Amino acid sequence: MKFKNNPPIDYIKEKKVNEVIKIYFEFNHLKQLYRQGWLLKNIPEEKCESVADHIYGVTMLSFIVAHEFFPELDITKIIKIALIHDLGEAHVGDLTPHDQIHPHKKEKDEYEAIAQILSKLSTGKMYLNLWNEFRNQSSLESKFVKQMDRLEMALQASVYENLGYGNMQNFFDHVQKKLSDEELKNIFKDIGYIRRRSSGIDFKMPE
Amino acid sequence: MKFKNNPPIDYIKEKKVNEVIKIYFEFNHLKQLYRQGWLLKNIPEEKCESVADHIYGVTMLSFIVAHEFFPELDITKIIKIALIHDLGEAHVGDLTPHDQIHPHKKEKDEYEAIAQILSKLSTGKMYLNLWNEFRNQSSLESKFVKQMDRLEMALQASVYENLGYGNMQNFFDHVQKKLSDEELKNIFKDIGYIRRRSSGIDFKMPE
Repeated sequence: MKFKNNPPIDYIKEKKVNEVIKIYFEFNHLKQLYRQGWLLKNIPEEKCESVADHIYGVTMLSFIVAHEFFPELDITKIIKIALIHDLGEAHVGDLTPHDQIHPHKKEKDEYEAIAQILSKLSTGKMYLNLWNEFRNQSSLESKFVKQMDRLEMALQASVYENLGYGNMQNFFDHVQKKLSDEELKNIFKDIGYIRRRSSGIDFKMPE
Repeated sequence: MKFKNNPPIDYIKEKKVNEVIKIYFEFNHLKQLYRQGWLLKNIPEEKCESVADHIYGVTMLSFIVAHEFFPELDITKIIKIALIHDLGEAHVGDLTPHDQIHPHKKEKDEYEAIAQILSKLSTGKMYLNLWNEFRNQSSLESKFVKQMDRLEMALQASVYENLGYGNMQNFFDHVQKKLSDEELKNIFKDIGYIRRRSSGIDFKMPE
Protein backbone atom coordinates (compact mmCIF):
# COMPACT_ATOMS: atom_id res chain seq x y z
CA MET A 1 0.00 0.00 0.00
CA LYS A 2 1.58 3.27 -1.07
CA PHE A 3 0.89 6.70 0.40
CA LYS A 4 2.53 10.11 0.57
CA ASN A 5 2.99 10.11 4.34
CA ASN A 6 2.13 8.06 7.41
CA PRO A 7 -1.40 8.46 8.78
CA PRO A 8 -1.68 11.89 10.49
CA ILE A 9 -3.75 10.38 13.30
CA ASP A 10 -0.62 8.52 14.49
CA TYR A 11 0.85 11.87 15.58
CA ILE A 12 -2.02 12.92 17.85
CA LYS A 13 -3.55 9.62 18.97
CA GLU A 14 -2.78 10.08 22.66
CA LYS A 15 -3.70 13.75 22.84
CA LYS A 16 -6.83 15.12 24.45
CA VAL A 17 -8.36 17.36 21.83
CA ASN A 18 -11.78 17.99 20.32
CA GLU A 19 -13.09 14.84 18.65
CA VAL A 20 -13.59 16.73 15.37
CA ILE A 21 -9.81 17.20 15.13
CA LYS A 22 -9.22 13.48 15.59
CA ILE A 23 -11.80 12.62 12.94
CA TYR A 24 -10.18 15.14 10.60
CA PHE A 25 -6.74 13.62 11.20
CA GLU A 26 -8.25 10.22 10.37
CA PHE A 27 -9.89 11.10 7.07
CA ASN A 28 -7.07 13.44 6.08
CA HIS A 29 -5.06 10.29 5.32
CA LEU A 30 -7.29 9.75 2.27
CA LYS A 31 -5.56 12.79 0.74
CA GLN A 32 -2.26 10.94 1.15
CA LEU A 33 -3.40 7.53 -0.03
CA TYR A 34 -2.84 6.85 -3.72
CA ARG A 35 -5.49 5.08 -5.74
CA GLN A 36 -3.43 1.93 -6.00
CA GLY A 37 -4.99 0.68 -9.24
CA TRP A 38 -3.33 3.48 -11.21
CA LEU A 39 0.08 2.75 -9.70
CA LEU A 40 -0.33 -0.83 -10.91
CA LYS A 41 -0.82 0.65 -14.40
CA ASN A 42 2.46 2.57 -14.02
CA ILE A 43 1.01 6.01 -13.39
CA PRO A 44 3.89 7.73 -11.54
CA GLU A 45 3.13 8.47 -7.87
CA GLU A 46 3.58 12.21 -8.38
CA LYS A 47 0.86 12.18 -11.05
CA CYS A 48 -1.50 9.73 -9.35
CA GLU A 49 -4.81 10.80 -7.82
CA SER A 50 -5.52 10.30 -4.13
CA VAL A 51 -8.50 8.47 -2.68
CA ALA A 52 -9.79 11.91 -1.58
CA ASP A 53 -9.50 13.13 -5.19
CA HIS A 54 -11.58 10.13 -6.25
CA ILE A 55 -14.21 10.73 -3.56
CA TYR A 56 -14.49 14.35 -4.70
CA GLY A 57 -14.92 13.10 -8.27
CA VAL A 58 -17.64 10.59 -7.35
CA THR A 59 -19.51 13.06 -5.15
CA MET A 60 -19.41 15.89 -7.67
CA LEU A 61 -20.38 13.61 -10.56
CA SER A 62 -23.22 12.10 -8.52
CA PHE A 63 -24.48 15.57 -7.59
CA ILE A 64 -24.50 16.77 -11.20
CA VAL A 65 -25.85 13.62 -12.86
CA ALA A 66 -28.56 13.06 -10.25
CA HIS A 67 -29.79 16.67 -10.48
CA GLU A 68 -29.84 16.60 -14.24
CA PHE A 69 -31.17 13.13 -15.02
CA PHE A 70 -32.55 11.47 -11.86
CA PRO A 71 -34.63 14.11 -10.04
CA GLU A 72 -36.82 11.35 -8.60
CA LEU A 73 -33.95 10.15 -6.39
CA ASP A 74 -33.07 11.55 -2.95
CA ILE A 75 -30.11 13.69 -3.94
CA THR A 76 -29.14 14.56 -0.38
CA LYS A 77 -28.79 10.90 0.47
CA ILE A 78 -26.80 10.29 -2.73
CA ILE A 79 -24.29 13.02 -1.90
CA LYS A 80 -23.89 11.80 1.68
CA ILE A 81 -23.32 8.19 0.61
CA ALA A 82 -20.83 9.29 -2.04
CA LEU A 83 -18.91 11.35 0.54
CA ILE A 84 -18.46 8.47 2.97
CA HIS A 85 -18.37 5.44 0.67
CA ASP A 86 -14.57 5.04 0.89
CA LEU A 87 -14.01 6.41 4.41
CA GLY A 88 -12.97 3.00 5.74
CA GLU A 89 -9.92 3.12 3.46
CA ALA A 90 -8.38 5.57 5.96
CA HIS A 91 -7.57 2.41 7.97
CA VAL A 92 -7.85 -0.44 5.49
CA GLY A 93 -6.07 1.19 2.55
CA ASP A 94 -7.15 1.11 -1.09
CA LEU A 95 -7.30 -2.62 -1.76
CA THR A 96 -7.42 -3.82 -5.35
CA PRO A 97 -8.18 -7.30 -6.73
CA HIS A 98 -4.38 -7.61 -6.88
CA ASP A 99 -4.35 -7.83 -3.05
CA GLN A 100 -6.52 -10.97 -3.10
CA ILE A 101 -8.49 -9.98 0.01
CA HIS A 102 -11.95 -11.52 0.20
CA PRO A 103 -14.63 -8.85 -0.36
CA HIS A 104 -16.41 -9.87 2.87
CA LYS A 105 -13.23 -9.38 4.88
CA LYS A 106 -12.65 -6.02 3.20
CA GLU A 107 -16.23 -4.93 3.99
CA LYS A 108 -15.99 -6.03 7.59
CA ASP A 109 -12.73 -4.16 8.09
CA GLU A 110 -14.08 -1.02 6.45
CA TYR A 111 -17.19 -1.11 8.62
CA GLU A 112 -15.08 -1.41 11.74
CA ALA A 113 -12.87 1.44 10.59
CA ILE A 114 -15.82 3.76 10.09
CA ALA A 115 -17.31 2.70 13.43
CA GLN A 116 -14.03 3.47 15.17
CA ILE A 117 -13.46 6.79 13.45
CA LEU A 118 -16.95 8.18 14.07
CA SER A 119 -18.09 6.30 17.19
CA LYS A 120 -17.65 9.20 19.60
CA LEU A 121 -20.02 11.47 17.74
CA SER A 122 -23.61 11.59 18.95
CA THR A 123 -24.57 11.35 15.27
CA GLY A 124 -22.14 8.46 14.57
CA LYS A 125 -24.81 5.85 13.91
CA MET A 126 -26.18 7.85 11.00
CA TYR A 127 -22.95 7.40 9.01
CA LEU A 128 -22.89 3.68 9.69
CA ASN A 129 -26.48 3.37 8.49
CA LEU A 130 -25.61 5.20 5.28
CA TRP A 131 -22.56 3.04 4.74
CA ASN A 132 -24.52 -0.15 5.38
CA GLU A 133 -27.08 0.99 2.85
CA PHE A 134 -24.24 1.33 0.36
CA ARG A 135 -22.71 -2.02 1.26
CA ASN A 136 -26.05 -3.85 1.05
CA GLN A 137 -27.13 -1.91 -2.05
CA SER A 138 -30.51 -1.68 -0.36
CA SER A 139 -31.82 1.52 -1.97
CA LEU A 140 -32.02 3.11 -5.40
CA GLU A 141 -29.71 5.85 -4.14
CA SER A 142 -26.97 3.44 -3.03
CA LYS A 143 -27.23 1.59 -6.35
CA PHE A 144 -26.84 4.90 -8.13
CA VAL A 145 -23.71 5.82 -6.16
CA LYS A 146 -22.18 2.40 -6.85
CA GLN A 147 -22.59 2.99 -10.57
CA MET A 148 -21.18 6.51 -10.26
CA ASP A 149 -18.20 5.09 -8.38
CA ARG A 150 -17.47 2.93 -11.41
CA LEU A 151 -18.29 5.58 -13.99
CA GLU A 152 -15.93 8.02 -12.28
CA MET A 153 -13.18 5.42 -12.51
CA ALA A 154 -13.81 5.03 -16.25
CA LEU A 155 -13.73 8.81 -16.71
CA GLN A 156 -10.47 9.07 -14.75
CA ALA A 157 -9.05 6.22 -16.86
CA SER A 158 -10.03 8.19 -19.94
CA VAL A 159 -8.30 11.31 -18.57
CA TYR A 160 -5.11 9.32 -17.98
CA GLU A 161 -5.32 7.89 -21.50
CA ASN A 162 -5.78 11.36 -22.97
CA LEU A 163 -2.80 12.60 -20.97
CA GLY A 164 -0.71 9.84 -22.54
CA TYR A 165 -0.37 7.30 -19.72
CA GLY A 166 -1.18 4.23 -21.80
CA ASN A 167 -4.11 1.92 -22.41
CA MET A 168 -6.61 1.46 -19.56
CA GLN A 169 -8.76 -1.16 -21.29
CA ASN A 170 -9.13 -3.41 -18.24
CA PHE A 171 -10.76 -0.55 -16.29
CA PHE A 172 -13.30 0.00 -19.05
CA ASP A 173 -14.07 -3.71 -19.29
CA HIS A 174 -14.71 -3.78 -15.55
CA VAL A 175 -16.98 -0.73 -15.54
CA GLN A 176 -19.02 -1.73 -18.57
CA LYS A 177 -20.37 -4.81 -16.81
CA LYS A 178 -21.51 -2.83 -13.79
CA LEU A 179 -23.71 -0.13 -15.34
CA SER A 180 -27.44 -0.75 -15.50
CA ASP A 181 -29.12 2.67 -15.94
CA GLU A 182 -29.58 3.64 -19.59
CA GLU A 183 -28.48 7.24 -19.04
CA LEU A 184 -25.21 6.07 -17.50
CA LYS A 185 -24.65 3.51 -20.26
CA ASN A 186 -25.01 6.35 -22.77
CA ILE A 187 -22.36 8.41 -21.01
CA PHE A 188 -20.08 5.38 -20.88
CA LYS A 189 -20.58 4.79 -24.60
CA ASP A 190 -19.46 8.36 -25.32
CA ILE A 191 -16.25 7.77 -23.34
CA GLY A 192 -15.50 5.22 -26.04
CA TYR A 193 -15.59 7.98 -28.67
CA ILE A 194 -13.03 10.07 -26.82
CA ARG A 195 -10.78 7.04 -26.54
CA ARG A 196 -10.96 6.20 -30.23
CA ARG A 197 -10.54 9.73 -31.48
CA SER A 198 -7.70 10.68 -29.18
CA SER A 199 -5.72 7.48 -29.14
CA GLY A 200 -6.12 5.87 -32.51
CA ILE A 201 -6.08 2.19 -33.21
CA ASP A 202 -5.23 0.52 -29.97
CA PHE A 203 -8.65 0.35 -28.34
CA LYS A 204 -11.54 -2.04 -28.28
CA MET A 205 -14.71 0.07 -28.38
CA PRO A 206 -17.37 -0.64 -25.80
CA GLU A 207 -20.60 -2.01 -27.32
CA MET B 1 0.37 28.37 -11.12
CA LYS B 2 1.59 24.81 -10.70
CA PHE B 3 -0.30 21.64 -11.58
CA LYS B 4 0.41 18.00 -12.28
CA ASN B 5 -0.78 18.08 -15.88
CA ASN B 6 -2.46 20.39 -18.37
CA PRO B 7 -6.25 20.71 -18.08
CA PRO B 8 -7.88 17.49 -19.37
CA ILE B 9 -10.63 19.49 -21.09
CA ASP B 10 -8.01 20.76 -23.58
CA TYR B 11 -7.82 17.25 -25.03
CA ILE B 12 -11.52 16.86 -25.83
CA LYS B 13 -12.72 20.44 -26.33
CA GLU B 14 -13.69 19.98 -29.97
CA LYS B 15 -15.27 16.58 -29.56
CA LYS B 16 -18.98 15.90 -29.65
CA VAL B 17 -19.68 13.89 -26.53
CA ASN B 18 -22.18 13.87 -23.69
CA GLU B 19 -22.02 17.14 -21.75
CA VAL B 20 -21.42 15.23 -18.49
CA ILE B 21 -18.08 14.03 -19.86
CA LYS B 22 -17.03 17.58 -20.70
CA ILE B 23 -18.02 18.82 -17.25
CA TYR B 24 -16.06 15.95 -15.70
CA PHE B 25 -12.98 16.78 -17.77
CA GLU B 26 -13.31 20.38 -16.54
CA PHE B 27 -13.53 19.69 -12.81
CA ASN B 28 -11.05 16.80 -13.00
CA HIS B 29 -8.36 19.48 -13.33
CA LEU B 30 -8.92 20.30 -9.64
CA LYS B 31 -7.32 16.91 -8.87
CA GLN B 32 -4.23 18.12 -10.72
CA LEU B 33 -4.07 21.63 -9.32
CA TYR B 34 -1.86 22.04 -6.25
CA ARG B 35 -3.01 24.20 -3.37
CA GLN B 36 -0.47 26.88 -4.16
CA GLY B 37 -0.22 28.27 -0.62
CA TRP B 38 1.54 25.10 0.56
CA LEU B 39 4.05 25.24 -2.28
CA LEU B 40 4.90 28.79 -1.16
CA LYS B 41 5.66 27.25 2.27
CA ASN B 42 8.03 24.78 0.60
CA ILE B 43 5.82 21.72 0.81
CA PRO B 44 7.24 19.56 -2.03
CA GLU B 45 4.86 19.13 -4.97
CA GLU B 46 4.77 15.35 -4.55
CA LYS B 47 3.50 15.78 -0.97
CA CYS B 48 1.15 18.70 -1.61
CA GLU B 49 -2.62 18.36 -1.53
CA SER B 50 -4.72 19.15 -4.60
CA VAL B 51 -7.63 21.57 -4.70
CA ALA B 52 -9.90 18.50 -5.00
CA ASP B 53 -8.32 17.09 -1.80
CA HIS B 54 -9.15 20.38 -0.08
CA ILE B 55 -12.72 20.41 -1.37
CA TYR B 56 -13.18 16.86 -0.07
CA GLY B 57 -11.80 18.02 3.30
CA VAL B 58 -14.12 21.04 3.51
CA THR B 59 -17.18 19.08 2.42
CA MET B 60 -16.56 16.17 4.78
CA LEU B 61 -15.75 18.46 7.71
CA SER B 62 -18.84 20.58 7.01
CA PHE B 63 -21.01 17.47 6.86
CA ILE B 64 -19.72 16.13 10.18
CA VAL B 65 -19.61 19.41 12.12
CA ALA B 66 -23.00 20.59 10.90
CA HIS B 67 -24.67 17.28 11.78
CA GLU B 68 -23.10 17.20 15.20
CA PHE B 69 -23.29 20.82 16.32
CA PHE B 70 -25.52 22.84 13.99
CA PRO B 71 -28.65 20.74 13.33
CA GLU B 72 -30.68 23.92 12.85
CA LEU B 73 -28.86 24.64 9.58
CA ASP B 74 -29.82 23.27 6.15
CA ILE B 75 -27.19 20.55 5.86
CA THR B 76 -28.01 19.67 2.27
CA LYS B 77 -27.37 23.23 1.21
CA ILE B 78 -24.14 23.29 3.22
CA ILE B 79 -22.78 20.18 1.52
CA LYS B 80 -23.73 21.45 -1.94
CA ILE B 81 -22.09 24.84 -1.38
CA ALA B 82 -18.95 23.17 0.02
CA LEU B 83 -18.76 20.89 -3.04
CA ILE B 84 -18.84 23.73 -5.57
CA HIS B 85 -17.21 26.59 -3.66
CA ASP B 86 -13.86 26.26 -5.49
CA LEU B 87 -15.13 24.97 -8.85
CA GLY B 88 -14.12 28.17 -10.65
CA GLU B 89 -10.48 27.36 -9.89
CA ALA B 90 -10.66 24.78 -12.68
CA HIS B 91 -10.19 27.80 -14.99
CA VAL B 92 -8.84 30.54 -12.76
CA GLY B 93 -6.32 28.48 -10.79
CA ASP B 94 -5.72 28.61 -7.05
CA LEU B 95 -4.83 32.27 -6.55
CA THR B 96 -3.18 33.32 -3.29
CA PRO B 97 -2.59 36.83 -1.88
CA HIS B 98 0.89 36.38 -3.39
CA ASP B 99 -0.68 36.75 -6.86
CA GLN B 100 -1.98 40.24 -6.04
CA ILE B 101 -5.20 39.79 -7.97
CA HIS B 102 -8.07 41.98 -6.73
CA PRO B 103 -10.72 39.85 -4.97
CA HIS B 104 -13.47 41.32 -7.19
CA LYS B 105 -11.61 40.32 -10.32
CA LYS B 106 -11.04 36.84 -8.90
CA GLU B 107 -14.73 36.47 -8.04
CA LYS B 108 -15.85 37.69 -11.44
CA ASP B 109 -13.53 35.24 -13.20
CA GLU B 110 -14.62 32.34 -10.99
CA TYR B 111 -18.30 33.12 -11.63
CA GLU B 112 -17.71 33.15 -15.37
CA ALA B 113 -15.79 29.88 -15.14
CA ILE B 114 -18.66 28.15 -13.33
CA ALA B 115 -21.18 29.62 -15.76
CA GLN B 116 -19.17 28.32 -18.70
CA ILE B 117 -18.57 24.86 -17.23
CA LEU B 118 -22.19 24.20 -16.25
CA SER B 119 -24.15 26.39 -18.66
CA LYS B 120 -25.36 23.59 -20.91
CA LEU B 121 -27.11 21.74 -18.10
CA SER B 122 -30.82 22.36 -17.67
CA THR B 123 -30.04 22.63 -13.94
CA GLY B 124 -27.05 24.96 -14.48
CA LYS B 125 -28.62 28.01 -12.87
CA MET B 126 -28.98 26.19 -9.56
CA TYR B 127 -25.20 25.90 -9.16
CA LEU B 128 -24.70 29.57 -9.96
CA ASN B 129 -27.30 30.52 -7.37
CA LEU B 130 -25.52 28.43 -4.74
CA TRP B 131 -22.17 29.92 -5.65
CA ASN B 132 -23.57 33.47 -5.52
CA GLU B 133 -24.98 32.74 -2.10
CA PHE B 134 -21.46 31.75 -1.05
CA ARG B 135 -19.85 34.77 -2.67
CA ASN B 136 -22.37 37.19 -1.12
CA GLN B 137 -22.37 35.37 2.24
CA SER B 138 -26.12 35.85 2.15
CA SER B 139 -27.20 32.89 4.30
CA LEU B 140 -26.22 31.21 7.55
CA GLU B 141 -25.23 28.16 5.53
CA SER B 142 -22.85 30.05 3.26
CA LYS B 143 -21.29 31.76 6.31
CA PHE B 144 -20.82 28.37 7.89
CA VAL B 145 -19.06 26.95 4.81
CA LYS B 146 -16.78 29.99 4.63
CA GLN B 147 -15.66 29.31 8.19
CA MET B 148 -15.22 25.59 7.46
CA ASP B 149 -13.12 26.50 4.42
CA ARG B 150 -10.76 28.35 6.76
CA LEU B 151 -10.89 25.80 9.55
CA GLU B 152 -10.00 23.04 7.11
CA MET B 153 -6.98 25.04 6.03
CA ALA B 154 -5.87 25.38 9.66
CA LEU B 155 -6.32 21.65 10.20
CA GLN B 156 -4.33 20.84 7.05
CA ALA B 157 -1.62 23.26 8.24
CA SER B 158 -1.55 21.38 11.52
CA VAL B 159 -1.21 18.06 9.67
CA TYR B 160 1.75 19.43 7.70
CA GLU B 161 3.35 20.70 10.90
CA ASN B 162 2.90 17.33 12.60
CA LEU B 163 4.43 15.64 9.56
CA GLY B 164 7.48 17.88 9.96
CA TYR B 165 7.08 20.42 7.16
CA GLY B 166 7.82 23.49 9.24
CA ASN B 167 5.96 26.30 10.93
CA MET B 168 2.63 27.36 9.43
CA GLN B 169 1.96 30.25 11.80
CA ASN B 170 0.76 32.67 9.13
CA PHE B 171 -2.06 30.27 8.17
CA PHE B 172 -3.25 30.09 11.78
CA ASP B 173 -3.11 33.87 12.16
CA HIS B 174 -5.25 34.22 9.04
CA VAL B 175 -7.85 31.67 10.13
CA GLN B 176 -8.16 32.91 13.70
CA LYS B 177 -9.52 36.27 12.55
CA LYS B 178 -12.19 34.67 10.39
CA LEU B 179 -13.99 32.38 12.83
CA SER B 180 -17.12 33.70 14.54
CA ASP B 181 -19.07 30.65 15.81
CA GLU B 182 -18.10 29.63 19.35
CA GLU B 183 -18.04 25.90 18.55
CA LEU B 184 -15.59 26.50 15.70
CA LYS B 185 -13.44 28.77 17.85
CA ASN B 186 -13.23 25.95 20.39
CA ILE B 187 -12.03 23.49 17.76
CA PHE B 188 -9.49 26.03 16.54
CA LYS B 189 -8.23 26.55 20.09
CA ASP B 190 -7.62 22.81 20.40
CA ILE B 191 -5.51 22.85 17.24
CA GLY B 192 -3.19 25.08 19.25
CA TYR B 193 -2.69 22.27 21.78
CA ILE B 194 -1.62 19.81 19.09
CA ARG B 195 0.83 22.37 17.74
CA ARG B 196 2.44 23.02 21.11
CA ARG B 197 2.66 19.43 22.20
CA SER B 198 3.97 18.04 18.94
CA SER B 199 6.34 20.78 17.91
CA GLY B 200 7.78 22.31 21.05
CA ILE B 201 8.88 25.85 21.47
CA ASP B 202 8.59 27.44 18.10
CA PHE B 203 4.89 28.36 18.07
CA LYS B 204 2.79 31.27 19.15
CA MET B 205 -0.39 29.84 20.69
CA PRO B 206 -3.71 31.17 19.45
CA GLU B 207 -5.64 33.01 22.18
